[in-house]
Amino acid sequence: MAVTRILDTAALRAIVDEVGLDSLMDEMIERLRTGFRRFDPEQVTAIDRTGFWYEKPALGLVEWMPTMEAGGRVSIKTVGYHPTNPTQRGLPSVMATTSLHDTTTGRLVSLTDATFLTALRTGAASGVATDLLAPIDATVLGVVGAGAQAITQVHAVSRVRPIERVVVYDADPEIAATFVARLPLDVAVVTADAEGLDHLVENVEILCTCTSVEPHAGPVFVDRPHIPGLHINAVGADFPGKTEVPTSMMVQAFVVPDSARQCLAEGEAQVLRPDQLGPELWELVAAGDASHRQELTVFDSTGWALEDLIAAELALDHADRLGVGVDAELQAVPVDPYDPYEVVRPR
Amino acid sequence: MAVTRILDTAALRAIVDEVGLDSLMDEMIERLRTGFRRFDPEQVTAIDRTGFWYEKPALGLVEWMPTMEAGGRVSIKTVGYHPTNPTQRGLPSVMATTSLHDTTTGRLVSLTDATFLTALRTGAASGVATDLLAPIDATVLGVVGAGAQAITQVHAVSRVRPIERVVVYDADPEIAATFVARLPLDVAVVTADAEGLDHLVENVEILCTCTSVEPHAGPVFVDRPHIPGLHINAVGADFPGKTEVPTSMMVQAFVVPDSARQCLAEGEAQVLRPDQLGPELWELVAAGDASHRQELTVFDSTGWALEDLIAAELALDHADRLGVGVDAELQAVPVDPYDPYEVVRPR
Repeated sequence: MAVTRILDTAALRAIVDEVGLDSLMDEMIERLRTGFRRFDPEQVTAIDRTGFWYEKPALGLVEWMPTMEAGGRVSIKTVGYHPTNPTQRGLPSVMATTSLHDTTTGRLVSLTDATFLTALRTGAASGVATDLLAPIDATVLGVVGAGAQAITQVHAVSRVRPIERVVVYDADPEIAATFVARLPLDVAVVTADAEGLDHLVENVEILCTCTSVEPHAGPVFVDRPHIPGLHINAVGADFPGKTEVPTSMMVQAFVVPDSARQCLAEGEAQVLRPDQLGPELWELVAAGDASHRQELTVFDSTGWALEDLIAAELALDHADRLGVGVDAELQAVPVDPYDPYEVVRPR
Repeated sequence: MAVTRILDTAALRAIVDEVGLDSLMDEMIERLRTGFRRFDPEQVTAIDRTGFWYEKPALGLVEWMPTMEAGGRVSIKTVGYHPTNPTQRGLPSVMATTSLHDTTTGRLVSLTDATFLTALRTGAASGVATDLLAPIDATVLGVVGAGAQAITQVHAVSRVRPIERVVVYDADPEIAATFVARLPLDVAVVTADAEGLDHLVENVEILCTCTSVEPHAGPVFVDRPHIPGLHINAVGADFPGKTEVPTSMMVQAFVVPDSARQCLAEGEAQVLRPDQLGPELWELVAAGDASHRQELTVFDSTGWALEDLIAAELALDHADRLGVGVDAELQAVPVDPYDPYEVVRPR
């Protein structure tokens, strides 16, 4: 029997319940590190995001991002994005699942709720970058944009640096106000208003930008004198024209993209030439290069398909170990392969 | 809560149990007819099959075929094909699932075992074609290649024509020998050996070719004098170089492809120029054109993505009606969209 493990939200909840959010973030960071260290561009194939974009019945899209690790698994993350879901339908704007297929048999191994895992891996990628790029003793973290992404950014950064104080700004004060209650850790949180934003930039050692600024409306803060060695995790830019970091800082900084090609097209690196980019994150990790901790550094995070494969495998490993998830016989195995009706005959 | 309905094999079995195979085939034929009749190339977008092909750890591929009906649903059929599965791993060579996403919210509506449904819709497409292209009173059906596809071909053809006698040939006499036991209907079956193949071609009114002939090893029968009005459902050709029908017959025949572009690339129509093709099946259906029943006709079936969407929707409609399948909360809906950890917190 070929069984597919369905990792529904309850399965993910059971995993978090058993492992704990901190350990799960630590594992996600470590898995990304390992995955990046052994990453071989010849062995991992990511197919460019493709999808259907439409305006009716509602403005939205369904996209898929397939990746294969040669000799390992194929993952296909499928994302529905409908910006009016929250206001008009009481649903999240992004709904995603990831399927894993093994390359020995081609069978569907698992299907996983991917929204939580995407948030987790996006945080973890910044954790990996921060660990190599930020001053080793950084204690003050600034956050511009206090939505969902901000939570996993702060969580991940706090797992690799001794963060004592978080200064948070959001254009919507109500979102900034609920920030501390959403954080999964005890840390001093200060909320900055628009006037406080300059002060925030000047006084933090690490800065995470994770806004939903409109294309061509950035940057989301101005270039101010800052602490030497400031490290920025720039997470929000994911669309042509959408940027968060002032160009003057990007030009000065040591910029590490997750995927150079993607970052030049839709990340912060849109304002740069290819020769102004540093190595990709996996190269930095593979080289174990921690020599830029005293410089202005930017991790340009657009989300990398390999991270989704690694996240889905982490969840599946825990689900297998704990026996959680729903086992579905989705790909029946007939006794007689020449009988297409065998599997549906009454037993 | 956003729930995804998982249609596992047990759900499909429950549907077949309640509806019956004959009625399900009739419904599938009718749904394809309706779908073809209202098909609007501007409204349905099928993205070319893409995938990962690999030789290790086992020779195989994982492919996906996304289709969107504007204003309706997106379907993504994902197919694993591993030719050594049956002999080396006791698994089918093809394992497929189809997901449906709604375009109002982008959510994953269902995930369905697609192997049985693919067989059903491939049969049904030949049923639709046969009904418009074969003599109205045809009673004798020939089959070349007695594997899984042959079963749904004979089943579907018998739903639209008063078939009394089936003459079957397979290069492997053991597969031919088990054919009658696999058929879901009572009909006289005669097995032809290699010498009997010419006789078969000369004496049938409808012929289905569904072999696994190697590329460039076809055709699988020779051009013989045949009954006027012979209709051929050519199902096997699905790969460059793979053909089943003699070129001399293709050139003479009124040829109806399911998808002209696909058939010219990998179907029987590979041996033809575009101007030698008749209308696509959906055009023939839309026109209600039954004027070719007295001619030599060929339905060139390579499998069309819209058929998979229609098949998955048929299964989902029955599953919803009968309350079968597994409901999985795969795309959690948080109360606070800015809290990525809410959905995994202990309840």
